Amino acid sequence: MLGTAMLVPAVADAATNNPDWAVFLASAFVTLFVGGTMILTARAKFTSLAMRQAFVLTTVAWVALAAFAALPFAFSNLGLSYTDAFFEAMSGITTTGSTVITGLDHAPPGILLWRALLQWLGGIGIIVMAISILPLLQVGGMQLFRMESSDSSDKAFPRAAQISAATAIIYAILTVICALAMWAAGMSAFEAIAHSMTTIATGGFSTSDASIGHFDSALIDWIVIVFMILGSLPFVLYFAMIRGNPLALLHDTQVQWFLITVGVSIAVIVLWLVLKNDIESLHAFRLSAFNVVSIITGTGYASTDYTMWGVLPVTAFFFFMFIGGCAGSTSCGIKIFRYQILFANARVQFRKMWQPNVIFSPRYNHKPIPETVTDAVMSFFFLFALVFGIMALALTLMGLDFMTAVSGAATAIANVGPALGDIIGPSGTFAPLPDAAKWVLSAGMLLGRLELFTVLVLFSPAFWRA
Amino acid sequence: MLGTAMLVPAVADAATNNPDWAVFLASAFVTLFVGGTMILTARAKFTSLAMRQAFVLTTVAWVALAAFAALPFAFSNLGLSYTDAFFEAMSGITTTGSTVITGLDHAPPGILLWRALLQWLGGIGIIVMAISILPLLQVGGMQLFRMESSDSSDKAFPRAAQISAATAIIYAILTVICALAMWAAGMSAFEAIAHSMTTIATGGFSTSDASIGHFDSALIDWIVIVFMILGSLPFVLYFAMIRGNPLALLHDTQVQWFLITVGVSIAVIVLWLVLKNDIESLHAFRLSAFNVVSIITGTGYASTDYTMWGVLPVTAFFFFMFIGGCAGSTSCGIKIFRYQILFANARVQFRKMWQPNVIFSPRYNHKPIPETVTDAVMSFFFLFALVFGIMALALTLMGLDFMTAVSGAATAIANVGPALGDIIGPSGTFAPLPDAAKWVLSAGMLLGRLELFTVLVLFSPAFWRA
Repeated sequence: MLGTAMLVPAVADAATNNPDWAVFLASAFVTLFVGGTMILTARAKFTSLAMRQAFVLTTVAWVALAAFAALPFAFSNLGLSYTDAFFEAMSGITTTGSTVITGLDHAPPGILLWRALLQWLGGIGIIVMAISILPLLQVGGMQLFRMESSDSSDKAFPRAAQISAATAIIYAILTVICALAMWAAGMSAFEAIAHSMTTIATGGFSTSDASIGHFDSALIDWIVIVFMILGSLPFVLYFAMIRGNPLALLHDTQVQWFLITVGVSIAVIVLWLVLKNDIESLHAFRLSAFNVVSIITGTGYASTDYTMWGVLPVTAFFFFMFIGGCAGSTSCGIKIFRYQILFANARVQFRKMWQPNVIFSPRYNHKPIPETVTDAVMSFFFLFALVFGIMALALTLMGLDFMTAVSGAATAIANVGPALGDIIGPSGTFAPLPDAAKWVLSAGMLLGRLELFTVLVLFSPAFWRA
Repeated sequence: MLGTAMLVPAVADAATNNPDWAVFLASAFVTLFVGGTMILTARAKFTSLAMRQAFVLTTVAWVALAAFAALPFAFSNLGLSYTDAFFEAMSGITTTGSTVITGLDHAPPGILLWRALLQWLGGIGIIVMAISILPLLQVGGMQLFRMESSDSSDKAFPRAAQISAATAIIYAILTVICALAMWAAGMSAFEAIAHSMTTIATGGFSTSDASIGHFDSALIDWIVIVFMILGSLPFVLYFAMIRGNPLALLHDTQVQWFLITVGVSIAVIVLWLVLKNDIESLHAFRLSAFNVVSIITGTGYASTDYTMWGVLPVTAFFFFMFIGGCAGSTSCGIKIFRYQILFANARVQFRKMWQPNVIFSPRYNHKPIPETVTDAVMSFFFLFALVFGIMALALTLMGLDFMTAVSGAATAIANVGPALGDIIGPSGTFAPLPDAAKWVLSAGMLLGRLELFTVLVLFSPAFWRA
């Protein structure tokens, strides 16, 4: 209800450039979706039947949401086909940030705001899902983040709903702070609002074809960097900080690993820029920090065309796409906690090799990891690799070159935004791709955003038979 | 002892073109290695200390073996640096098949035979290791193939030694049959001997720069296809077939999955060749079957430059490198049984999602998979992806382009042979790469051949501390 209420003035603004009815239909659907989620969250018990309904509803709701959110794009004067409009909408609500629109600098403000809103709603939508639904659906190891006091599911739900509401407020406050900072740093009020929404959602839609590079301001770059990182941290920890545990963030090992990973990645690229490309070190730091954080968090802004930096940066940026932020944030991809669990398990395997009779147990955040979580995480990793491979092959079937197909598959499934290569790199657009490729990529974004399992389970015959 | 005995006449032949002492030193080392393995195999008990010795010895032995096997190359009149010679030797004993030598058609027969012998010995070496050592070291899920009657390790060793000996005989017989078939199909006796050794070992060294394409004979192509497949099946099953279970091969699910995977892959490429490249269907079948089998089994022969076939085949060949043959064969890579376990576990994850209170157990070959095996396999998959990524990045640091670095890393760690791109593709050579890249690739081959864990455990501080 809160989300819908916030939507109305925004839509009224957007409506100046768009046929009213389409916008209203779309926002009506948003209401339906949020309503549906709430009803689900309010259920006292999940039986096996209700569980299956939850899966079907989740996927259907996201697809339908994209289908309706596409209408303003389709009816706009941008001349987009429905395929393009659907791609843009799916890229929006999944907070991916890949775009088929060029000439953003002269696009009507309604469209620009609609794109930003989609990402902003997608961002909060995924956080709420990560807190309330995904742990219960036991998706890809997310059950690790089930609220700790919730041993019986009856008690869990009201608590999850409370935390979701609190998180939504924190999300809104961070957006406002970000917008004010951007405005103070020199953006127009409109640009500040649009970019603050897509920054905190780690979405990456911009109001300019040159993305954040358009502003060419170190201050704006650093503001964006800070809020991209804030958007990639677990939002429940902000809640914990407010509730009297100010060090919650720093004590969380996922946050520690995330910051170390980002730090090391930035350092490697800075070294390359300084040593190989002769860029002055402070400027190299800014360039590296901005673009590395943008790709690792899956935001997808660009401050320059980093594919021109050389072979190591390009290959590194390809692998950065597979990292992702923290669980329970707006960012996507494989995510840090899964790597922690994979490493913890690999460590145990090594110990077992030469001490076969000693029992070791992998740990996460100083607690033993339940065997079910390890299995789920490792299956997730395998399926991620598998879906990536199949998507890349499917894209080559549609005539894309090796680099475009491989990086396009990665950027879609990890919900990053730009890919690599001449066509869909950071300074390119997805518009020239064939329609079939756009549908494959849209499917990839949905799969990635809903943590693979949620969607893939619908393709299991046993799921429908039982 | 048998291996050494067989080596002597071959070395005598090879010695016609090489300084004797180097060849003898190398073969002396082979003896030492085999002897060391035997001593290990004969030990009655593995304590924690002996276990660690086994890991150190295995890795050291393979590195030393490559170091000494490189001497004939270094002292030959081919003008190879020691880096090149070591690369070629490591590529030989790991049955990879990447080469830095051009002008094979005019190379001295001693060198050609030495290359073939290295692969042949590497092939039987890895089968014996897979039967006797790897299951005991619990490497990457290989404990699944511990001999079934061996509950106490005291009894296991004599049995494993017997089976190893029987397998070596089967290996030798298959080589002879293959050589006779090739000779009958038109190869010279020398070519038949050299190619039969590198075919059954799924190695891929040839006596011609054009690889098997040099002969341009459908009959030879099909003989090679059959024996590449025979080399990729579990050799223990041949033993079982002789011992009174003639259907052992067909009843093994790993063999079934392998043949289905190969069949589907061939069919996809045939369709592409017929529909897109207008190649006559029977010829397309031969081209596809030869090159697909060569890459999936990790042999690395080529009958033509398949990188010219188009974008889908190139990308498909890239992913084929990650498949591999069956465990307990001469082929490498991730291997079919690991995919079976990964799929079985993913299946269980899906069932659990909507039936959280039902207990499912993943199965392999109609038996439940022990939890330790699942964990080990999934860790292997993760480490494979990780090492692949790190190697690809390291290669770009040495100036290789994206395609060369990424496919080079894949071909080394999966022990395939040729990679993709202009330099190290099927019609290229690894010679132009910088020395540093050759050392990285050599390390990758060793890691892949020894199933990652065996080598990586040596880098664990805890391993040395305890």
